[in-house]
Formats: sequence, structure tokens, C-alpha cells
Amino acid sequence: MKFAGIIAEYDPFHNGHAWQLAQTKALGAERVAVAMSCSLVQRGALPLLPEAVRTRSALTCGADLVFALPAPCACAGAEAFARAGVALLAAAGCDGLVFGAETPDAALLMEAAELLDSGSYRAALKAQLAGGARSFAAARQAAAAQLASDERVAALLDKPNNNLAVEYCRAIRSLAPRMEAYPLPRQGANHGEALHSAHGQFASASALRKLWAEGGADAVAPYVPEAVFPLYQEAYAAGQYTDFSAAGRCELALLRSACRGKAPFADIRGVSEGLEHRLEAAVRTSTTYDELLDALTTVRYPRARMRRLAMDAALGCTADSLPALPPYLHLLGGKKDALPFLKNCTLPVSHSLARLRGSGGASARMAEAQLAAADFGTLCRVSPEAMGGLLRQKNIFLT
Amino acid sequence: MKFAGIIAEYDPFHNGHAWQLAQTKALGAERVAVAMSCSLVQRGALPLLPEAVRTRSALTCGADLVFALPAPCACAGAEAFARAGVALLAAAGCDGLVFGAETPDAALLMEAAELLDSGSYRAALKAQLAGGARSFAAARQAAAAQLASDERVAALLDKPNNNLAVEYCRAIRSLAPRMEAYPLPRQGANHGEALHSAHGQFASASALRKLWAEGGADAVAPYVPEAVFPLYQEAYAAGQYTDFSAAGRCELALLRSACRGKAPFADIRGVSEGLEHRLEAAVRTSTTYDELLDALTTVRYPRARMRRLAMDAALGCTADSLPALPPYLHLLGGKKDALPFLKNCTLPVSHSLARLRGSGGASARMAEAQLAAADFGTLCRVSPEAMGGLLRQKNIFLT
Repeated sequence: MKFAGIIAEYDPFHNGHAWQLAQTKALGAERVAVAMSCSLVQRGALPLLPEAVRTRSALTCGADLVFALPAPCACAGAEAFARAGVALLAAAGCDGLVFGAETPDAALLMEAAELLDSGSYRAALKAQLAGGARSFAAARQAAAAQLASDERVAALLDKPNNNLAVEYCRAIRSLAPRMEAYPLPRQGANHGEALHSAHGQFASASALRKLWAEGGADAVAPYVPEAVFPLYQEAYAAGQYTDFSAAGRCELALLRSACRGKAPFADIRGVSEGLEHRLEAAVRTSTTYDELLDALTTVRYPRARMRRLAMDAALGCTADSLPALPPYLHLLGGKKDALPFLKNCTLPVSHSLARLRGSGGASARMAEAQLAAADFGTLCRVSPEAMGGLLRQKNIFLT
Repeated sequence: MKFAGIIAEYDPFHNGHAWQLAQTKALGAERVAVAMSCSLVQRGALPLLPEAVRTRSALTCGADLVFALPAPCACAGAEAFARAGVALLAAAGCDGLVFGAETPDAALLMEAAELLDSGSYRAALKAQLAGGARSFAAARQAAAAQLASDERVAALLDKPNNNLAVEYCRAIRSLAPRMEAYPLPRQGANHGEALHSAHGQFASASALRKLWAEGGADAVAPYVPEAVFPLYQEAYAAGQYTDFSAAGRCELALLRSACRGKAPFADIRGVSEGLEHRLEAAVRTSTTYDELLDALTTVRYPRARMRRLAMDAALGCTADSLPALPPYLHLLGGKKDALPFLKNCTLPVSHSLARLRGSGGASARMAEAQLAAADFGTLCRVSPEAMGGLLRQKNIFLT
């Protein structure tokens, strides 16, 4: 592996992320490119910290190039998220993908990916769902267990990062077969897991967001690289972080406004099976964002999916308006001496989102959706920022 | 005068309002109907307190019937506001209009109204504006001074409540010539004036909103009728009052979202002379609602007008979507023994906004705009409420 790729959110960037970057270099990668969620994250929310802070953190700790995973690609289910990230990194020229997994066994993860791509699996899954499986995740695991020769294959689908890892492997199989998969073990806390003294200096990003909410930047100090901490202190002092309470209220304002139209959510991405009516009813009866999610979430409709649906609906993200894969490489930052690695890109590349938008077609549509998310996000900061910041943002070059 | 009408906001209802109601009865009125701003107020903002609290306060202190002055009529310039209020009260059957003025001289105010309605005044005003008058208000006063035989006529236009009073008189002249005008002196503080010990138990509504913001319901106790105060305490404890900071952020969220369209504000009510571009530029560069107003306000474009413009734009209130005058009488509350006074109404009357909306045409359009404002307002409460509350709200009957 000469040019490694990592798909990340860095929300916020912490010791585990720095460890992963160091391991990637230790695996022999000369350069590391990151596809980083931009303005929206996979759980259907705004990121805690601005792109600039997260980009600078990654570059400070070993990343060489940071590309924006456009908001509509970032705010998407595991499969679409993985495909967009892999396509982006393959277009950048990466020959390896490094990712975390509870079961860091490349062969086993690839076997699971192959299984999930098979026709027999799709048939088994369909039967499980028709048979009234408790949830999609349960149906998936039961179908895999039915078909896998190695029982470890079905077993690994039980863990959240393994699931995402398998989606990365599926995306590699279909979009970038020459890319190699490098799973790494996760350090410390599992995704979403609470802090625990046994984890030492490693904490999950969600635990850190919680710490930040309770105690500001200072509270996350033990879990983030020393070189990065001053960036967080600065962002905190300047109010450059998301006010999630304001964000929830603003999202509801947009959703209420949408309800004035007829069939307001019929064309929203991800809507099927009458979900648009369910969403409209929930918007009409909910008084807070949490209430909205409570009203939408069931075993069949997991909370993260409902968060993404609500965000898509608030931002007017329709099913037919967007290309499924990134049509460009929007460079958020890079090390100067890594720039020659950009010469083999197979997609238009620029640090200027305005320029990428200007090329029309799919690029214009993706850039507009990205800007809508960005303008929503900067309004929801503790200290809000003007619209169009992402258009004016200078590339972050580190020497 | 048998059946008096009052046009009011009661935001919040205070001792001055109670005094005015008592005076109205003292003038011989058997019954008093109020046209009360609903969900939006004339300064282009959400009212501090919900309709129900303001209605109940008025009924407790002498009002017999309270009608909603629909949000788009309430959030309008003085002329349109006055015309809507007068038309509504005339349709309810009122034979007199009681209002406050710094110069409570009916003959003089009517003389001013007649002057302002004349062709020679319109010509003089045009000349003043073409001559580069400092502001519309200044041009108006200069034009009036030029033509009035009595110098007191032009002089009275210098006071805010006189100006509104003259607009009431103009509306009476054109829409309800058989209605009689009863100007009353204002008690205590002038509109918008800060508190002053000399004013005793009288304070302006804006001073009370400021007190409330600083000290909650308790802070306004000295200035509101004893019988009303418990309603305020209850509303305060339940968080049933506007969070103006949240409202400003939500309004910006709606405006930012609108900016995604082409020429987003071209059709908004009140837009002319390129104001739509000015508004769009201000939305794009402003980080807070106050910044937005600062960017919009000039001598030519007063702050209150810009607040109304921004609210219309946020709620998508277009110039051609709405009837200029209320097409129905939406009864918010009344005393049981005053209900027979409703038999002579010349507009459809109901306590049910759903029913009025159901009659289609202008009524449906007005009701939809009213509901949009109401649903925005209830989201911006300290404790937000579900959508459609105004549809479910029970009529408030007091015996």
C-alpha cells in the first residue's frame, strides 16, 4: 500500500484517530488521504466542530490530504456512505483502505461481503423479512447465518463497526476491486460506548461530544492529541461549535414550514412505504426534536435512519436531485508535499467548491446540497456564521 | 355608542388597557368587541404571550368579544393594520371605535384624515418624496403642514399614536362611515417609552416585555390588573411565552432556506424597488437576527417595516396570496351574554378556524397564512407546542 485512504468523520478527532493514522503509516503507506464527512455526519446530525478544525486536526496527526465527503453522501445509510467514501478515495488514487473493525480480519470481512453480495443471500434476506424478522439487522444476520460456511462470518455482523467494515468491503468489490482492505482493531471504547476508566486515553467520539457538552473543550483534553487540543480551545472560545439545542429547534422550524405544502415529504430521499405520512404526522405533533425522533423510531425504523430522514426533509433533499456518488474531489486541506499525489485523480479536483459547483450538472447539484447543509450548520453554531462560508473557506495547507 | 370596538395587541395586557376598557364602558358602550392581533403583531414579531392568555385577560377586564385580527393583517403597516381592524369591527356590528392618541380630539384627527385622503395631499407628498425628504414620515408631515389650515393638524402627525389614530379615522371614512371615532388620552408612558416612576401603575407594553425578559412574570405585577396577574404567572410557569432568541434563529433558518431558490424574495408582500435583493444580501451575510435588521434598516426603510418584511419572507407571505381585509370573524372568546350581539355580523363568524378555512377561497388563504404564523410562534415558545394548536383551541367563554 503506497497511498492509503481512510473514511472518517473526526467528530471530534481523538487519540484513537491519531493511533489509526500512525498505524496506517506503520503499514507502509507513504501518504494518507481522508474522505471526511462535510457539514453533516452519518448519524443524520450536524458535526460538533467545523470542517476547518477537523481538517487541521487530521493533517496535524498524520493525514496528508483531506477531501470533503459531501453532506448528502455523509448523511446516508452505511451502504451508501461506504460506497461514496470508497468511490471518492479510489478516484483520488488510493490503493488501500484502512478502517476500524471489532474483527480486524480482512479475509473474513471480505468473505462476509461476498456473501452479502450473493443472490442466495438476497433471497434468504427476503424470506427473513417476509417471515417477520424483528428488524433489518436481525434479518440480515439470520440470513447470513443460514448461508455462511464459517460461523464467524455471521457472528461478526453482530458488531457495529464490523457491519460498516463489511460495507466498505462490498464497496471495494464493486467499485474499486484493486483497492486493498486493511482492517485495524478499534482502540478503547466501542462506538457509542460510554467512557470507562479501563479505556485509558481512548474514548469514542460520541463520549467526547457528551463530555464537550458538559464541560467544554477542557473536558476532552485527556482523550485528544496534545497538538490538536489548542485547536479545540480556540474553537470553544470562539463559539465555533454546534448548539445542538438550537439546531433541533431550527430543524423543526424547517419541517413545520414544509408541512404547509401538499404531500410535503413524498419526494424526500429514503421515503417509501408511507414513511412520508409518518414523518408529517410526527412533525405536526412534536414539540421538540427529541419528541420527533421518539415518534418516528421503531424497531423497523432505527433512530439514526429517522435522524437522516428528518435532516433530508428539513433540507429538502429529494431522491432524484442527487448523484449517488461524489462527482468531484473537494479538497479541504493537505500537506504541500502531498499535492503531487493529486495528479492521478479520476474526478475533477479543486479546493474551491464554487469552482466545482460552476461545472454544472451533477457537480452543481451536489455542491448546492452541500451548501444548504453548510449554511444550516453555521447558523446552528454557538456563534453563528454568515452563509456561504464553505465557498470562501481557504484550503488548509500544512508544510 | 352601543357597541364599541377596540383594535389592540394586548402584548401583554396591562393597566392602561384595563383603563381604556373601563373608559369605553363609561362612554356608554353596552358591549365592547376587540380585534386583537393573532400570532403576529404589528411590529413584525411574535407576541410575548399566547392568544388564549391575552384573550382571557381582555375578557376579565371588560371586553365582551375578542376576534382574531389575522396574522397577515396584524403584521402590516399602520394603514393596512388600521383598515383591517376597522373592517373587522364594522363587520361585527360596532358603531364606535375607541383608541388611544396623544391628541384625543376626534374632530382634529378626522380633519387630518380628510386631509391625508385628499388629492392635493397626495400631490404634495409626491413632491416632498421627489424632493428627497429624509423619510416617509418627514415627507408626510411636510406635505400636511403645507396644506392644513389649522397648524395643529400637521403638528399632531409628529406623535406615533396620533398617526395610527389618523389611520383609524381614514379607515372609518372609507370603510365604515357610520362608525364614530372616540379617541382617548394614553395613560402614563408613551408607546415604546421606558419605565419612569412618574408613570405610576402605567407602563407601555414594550417596557413590560423588557421587564418580563429580565425578571419573568413577577416583574410586570405592578403594571397589570390584579385579576390578570395569575394568568401571567401560570403562563410563565408553563413556559407559554415566546423565546425571542430562539425565534430570531428559527426565522433566519427559514430565510436561509428560502435563499436556495432563484429570486427568493421577489414575490414577497411589500417588496418593491429592489428590496428583494437587499433582503437576500442581508440574509446571506447576517449571523443573527439583530444583524439582519441592522443590515436592512435605513432612514428610508424603518426597522419595524423591515421586521415585517423579514417575517413575511420567512413565512412565505406573497403579495398576491392574501385578501387585504379579513374575510371572516374568528372569535377567540367572549362573554356568554354578549353572544346575541353576533347576530348582525356581515362576515362569516365562527370560533373554529378549521371551519372558516373550510369555506375555501379568500377564507382558506387567510386561515392558512394565520396557521403558518401560529405554528411558527408555538415552536418558538420557551416550552414549544404542537402544530395546529389554533385549530384545536376551544373558544374562551366567560360568564
